[in-house]
Amino acid sequence: MCKKRKNIIEPFDLTRIKDPHFVASLTKDELEMLESQIREEIITQVSKYGGHLSSNLGSISLTIALNRAFDFNEDKLLLDVGHQSYTYKILTGRKLEGLRTKVGVSGFQKRSESSYDHFEAGHSSTSLSAAQGMAIARDLNGEKYHVVALIGDASISNGLAFEALNDIAHRNNKVIIVLNDNEMSITPPTGALTKMFRRWKISPRYIKSKSRFKRLMFKSRVGYFFYRIAWYIKDWFARHLISHNIFEQMGLSYIGLVDGHNYKKLDKALQLAKKQQKSTIVHVKTTKGKGYTPAETDREGSWHGIAPFHVETGLLKNNHESLITWSKLYADIVEKVMEENKDVLLINPATLKGSELEEVFKKFPGRSIDVGIAEEHAVTLSSGLALSGKHPIISIYSTFLQRSFDQVVHDLARMNLPTTILVDRAGLIGADGSTHQGIFDQAAFIGIPNVVIAMASTPELAKKLVYTSLNHKGGPFFIRYPRERIDKINSNSLNGDTFEVGKWLINEENKSNVALVSYGPLFEKLKMKLGEENIHITLVNAIFQTPFDINVVAKLNNYKKVIIIDPYATSFGFTNNLVATLNRNGYKGQIITRAIPRKNITHASVSEQYKETLLDIESLIKLVKKSL
Amino acid sequence: MCKKRKNIIEPFDLTRIKDPHFVASLTKDELEMLESQIREEIITQVSKYGGHLSSNLGSISLTIALNRAFDFNEDKLLLDVGHQSYTYKILTGRKLEGLRTKVGVSGFQKRSESSYDHFEAGHSSTSLSAAQGMAIARDLNGEKYHVVALIGDASISNGLAFEALNDIAHRNNKVIIVLNDNEMSITPPTGALTKMFRRWKISPRYIKSKSRFKRLMFKSRVGYFFYRIAWYIKDWFARHLISHNIFEQMGLSYIGLVDGHNYKKLDKALQLAKKQQKSTIVHVKTTKGKGYTPAETDREGSWHGIAPFHVETGLLKNNHESLITWSKLYADIVEKVMEENKDVLLINPATLKGSELEEVFKKFPGRSIDVGIAEEHAVTLSSGLALSGKHPIISIYSTFLQRSFDQVVHDLARMNLPTTILVDRAGLIGADGSTHQGIFDQAAFIGIPNVVIAMASTPELAKKLVYTSLNHKGGPFFIRYPRERIDKINSNSLNGDTFEVGKWLINEENKSNVALVSYGPLFEKLKMKLGEENIHITLVNAIFQTPFDINVVAKLNNYKKVIIIDPYATSFGFTNNLVATLNRNGYKGQIITRAIPRKNITHASVSEQYKETLLDIESLIKLVKKSL
Repeated sequence: MCKKRKNIIEPFDLTRIKDPHFVASLTKDELEMLESQIREEIITQVSKYGGHLSSNLGSISLTIALNRAFDFNEDKLLLDVGHQSYTYKILTGRKLEGLRTKVGVSGFQKRSESSYDHFEAGHSSTSLSAAQGMAIARDLNGEKYHVVALIGDASISNGLAFEALNDIAHRNNKVIIVLNDNEMSITPPTGALTKMFRRWKISPRYIKSKSRFKRLMFKSRVGYFFYRIAWYIKDWFARHLISHNIFEQMGLSYIGLVDGHNYKKLDKALQLAKKQQKSTIVHVKTTKGKGYTPAETDREGSWHGIAPFHVETGLLKNNHESLITWSKLYADIVEKVMEENKDVLLINPATLKGSELEEVFKKFPGRSIDVGIAEEHAVTLSSGLALSGKHPIISIYSTFLQRSFDQVVHDLARMNLPTTILVDRAGLIGADGSTHQGIFDQAAFIGIPNVVIAMASTPELAKKLVYTSLNHKGGPFFIRYPRERIDKINSNSLNGDTFEVGKWLINEENKSNVALVSYGPLFEKLKMKLGEENIHITLVNAIFQTPFDINVVAKLNNYKKVIIIDPYATSFGFTNNLVATLNRNGYKGQIITRAIPRKNITHASVSEQYKETLLDIESLIKLVKKSL
Repeated sequence: MCKKRKNIIEPFDLTRIKDPHFVASLTKDELEMLESQIREEIITQVSKYGGHLSSNLGSISLTIALNRAFDFNEDKLLLDVGHQSYTYKILTGRKLEGLRTKVGVSGFQKRSESSYDHFEAGHSSTSLSAAQGMAIARDLNGEKYHVVALIGDASISNGLAFEALNDIAHRNNKVIIVLNDNEMSITPPTGALTKMFRRWKISPRYIKSKSRFKRLMFKSRVGYFFYRIAWYIKDWFARHLISHNIFEQMGLSYIGLVDGHNYKKLDKALQLAKKQQKSTIVHVKTTKGKGYTPAETDREGSWHGIAPFHVETGLLKNNHESLITWSKLYADIVEKVMEENKDVLLINPATLKGSELEEVFKKFPGRSIDVGIAEEHAVTLSSGLALSGKHPIISIYSTFLQRSFDQVVHDLARMNLPTTILVDRAGLIGADGSTHQGIFDQAAFIGIPNVVIAMASTPELAKKLVYTSLNHKGGPFFIRYPRERIDKINSNSLNGDTFEVGKWLINEENKSNVALVSYGPLFEKLKMKLGEENIHITLVNAIFQTPFDINVVAKLNNYKKVIIIDPYATSFGFTNNLVATLNRNGYKGQIITRAIPRKNITHASVSEQYKETLLDIESLIKLVKKSL
């Protein structure tokens, strides 16, 4: 599998790795050679396909060390989020070539890719709960393998991870938690827990000396007696004089702080962890982006998830000069409204970079709140703000909004509190695959009292929607937008125009007997394409997916055919509810619908995913032509 | 407002209380008189109407003390969950007579009831986040009021509360958190945090002496200098020698442990909390059920939420001898299947009592897991179990399942992991009101890939559904059941029979041209009533709300009219999606639908709520007759 090595370390052939067992016997020099090759491979492939860079570069040595200490044929490895899995993929015989494209490997752990993947994620902070489940199953079966969760310092501060820690520490099913502390997460993490981590400088000596002492003393009965006495004395001192950290207070064993780029220390700490009787935290310090200067020195999170780039310069390959993302457009609008209205606050759960909100945060530090990976708290915090007369704008990815379902229902909608929720990455999201699809929020929230859901088809409408949401006296006002690019606009053109909530735009001049109902940026593309193709049907821009425009819905009764297209959600939301409403209105014609199907849509480019779901422009034009 | 009092303390006239200001000037004896009167009133009213008893009895003195220390005309009080609000209601001029009935006050804080209610909840662990939002708003406005959150020891162990603590400790917006530690929550709470609380016996002396010392030393410049020196020395000792508790480690001020039934100590601690510069935890120890022996000695949580009872004996007024709840039925079925299959585990988030699972937990302690109020963890833990070949049965209330939306989507459904989710209290839930309605889960989950949702109409079907879910190789299998009672059955009659997933039952013998589609226990009642009324239409028992039975749906095309009735969910789930499916099938007849409307449905009896939503038997028979 690997070339024979002598004094001069020869490079490994990464393409011939079948399983990770070989790393156990490598020397220090060989380990360094392997690490540098993996580093180069990760940089090369991510520069070609985009992906998570910093977290992967930071965890190469830690991942190799984990595979030296454990045998993941038997033992279980749960990578929290899974975005730091590239080294593991290489060591378990997978190629990074084609990473996150339709023909390549996923950017996360995926059971269908390898028997070495025992877990899957994409959202953060799930690994501890799942690890505990595996440990409970193991102990019930009387099996002996280790369950190891690798989690970052930002992920562990999430509520789900805390619930898991609280429960793990309480039970006797041993889990080994490797806390990969790079002091960064996506952007520098916030919160009291993080500050705590910074203060700990406790060496692994405490537990180590204890076990050596134990070995020594256990050799005789008298020794055992003295061991117990000494243990009680030491324990008293430990309990009374050592400032236990939060994990020890909870009842976990704690080993730390371990240099995550030093194999000798990692080996020692992980062996120590294997010997512990109870659940153990191994606190490892790593450097995010290790070995690639632009990523290592990045404090903005620019190198967390990255598009294809030039390795030498660190510049993006496609800089989309004349185009901006919808995220950037909404960030600019938010900046404008925060300038105009001091009662507007911006709340974001750790996606400043992805939603391009850094400038807003810099400009309004007192009114911009990054709560870290705490989507539930982001929403309930906003309810407190709204109860005090502030208008919170919550910026959140569609897929992460799933975490706040109850908080939106119970804390915002039920109390009818005015809030704007900017739902970024709504619809199909491309390379991140099935864990991140933004296709479920609309159907989940459409039936909740007091909720408004809208999507703009143009930048001009986007501006109006934000102003409309600020003026709206009702409950949560969702403004969804996709992971696409649009033409740059001049944000000075913002003029505070608003829109009537629930109003749709209908273009009836053609007096066709076919009406097409859709919304969002795709609506504009469809309109243009239909024009080019000389197809003249009535077009309805259903800006609000709820509430419906009852006047326009009534007018649809005059059409022989109604085509409903929803490219940004499954059919269980807007589409089927509009069909039902037409039906209740006594509509007698034919209804043709197309929306995102109810299935997991895996990694590929956004346009491939639209093609796959027959929601690309060509498929849709075909659908319209067939309907005429 | 209150009678003139002399040496002999005369009773207060509770009915004449307008606001809580009078409590500030009461003597010890008067406080005790007031407390005993409030206790009697709470016991009397809860014995008549049912409600939360133990938590209210335990927090009378604490609530009075809070109203002595703060002025909630200005200051804000957030009662976590809100089920301990009865004393506060009395002190703010509300009557408990008619508690939780249509004409009485809600069982929680409710802004529409009183200007003293600044917050609303019903679900736990939201108060800290909302309090922080209020504190941020206050500080931005340059206002000075206090924001006080009262939270129990079980609620604070939830992930949302932790996210809030982590964020509160990190920012400079002062929140006062009163931790009401009764060592009980609903049932004895679980988790490492709870064990930690038990270990703390730190008196409030530390902070007290500091501030006294400060006052003394600040009188001169030299004094100030020595104060700073002393402070640094003391701080060093504190940091190095005192075992900080978790809150102090996070950076919060900690005052505790305070006797929550001693006004002098409460007054002192709360005054101290008001003076702190940063967010402060006041750790108060109370006795749940204080003053009513059956509640005080209850370790099962029987007196947490209670139905009407006889005060003298503690016995329930209506013991429903021949009837059991659906919860009990499913608990019995779970007990049976756990007996038969050692790979089945039961997971529950702190609702053992409500879902009547105590016996199962006692019988299978190793395979029954109460995770505490940690709904997210309950689901992701189950994904770990399922990934290891176990079959988890998650028992959870519909309304709390809202907390686990992302975990079901991302950790169970996406990975297609076999799990049974018993959804208790699905549909309208009566006296707990709008915060607890079980009407949103079905529509939220119906569009998620791999999800099965079912409801049995009879106990016989219930058994079959559980066995079917255990045999099902796909993802999460929801079995919903309502807050109603049914005839007792013999659980020995369980025979392992299963059912085809997605199969509906159709009774076509009548050859009518009207078909009625419904499901659940109401379907049986409707069937019986239609029989009595001699109305012969085709009846479809749509046992599975997803997937649909495509054969039966196709047959519906033969009917002139289809009536769809969903009494257990809003129309956005099963109802509208069935309409859309009929439409796609080319159905040309008339569809009549009735489901729970999209609105907040407040406290009343279950039958009143069904009447209000026109889903009671009489309204439905009227609907059917009208359709004929």
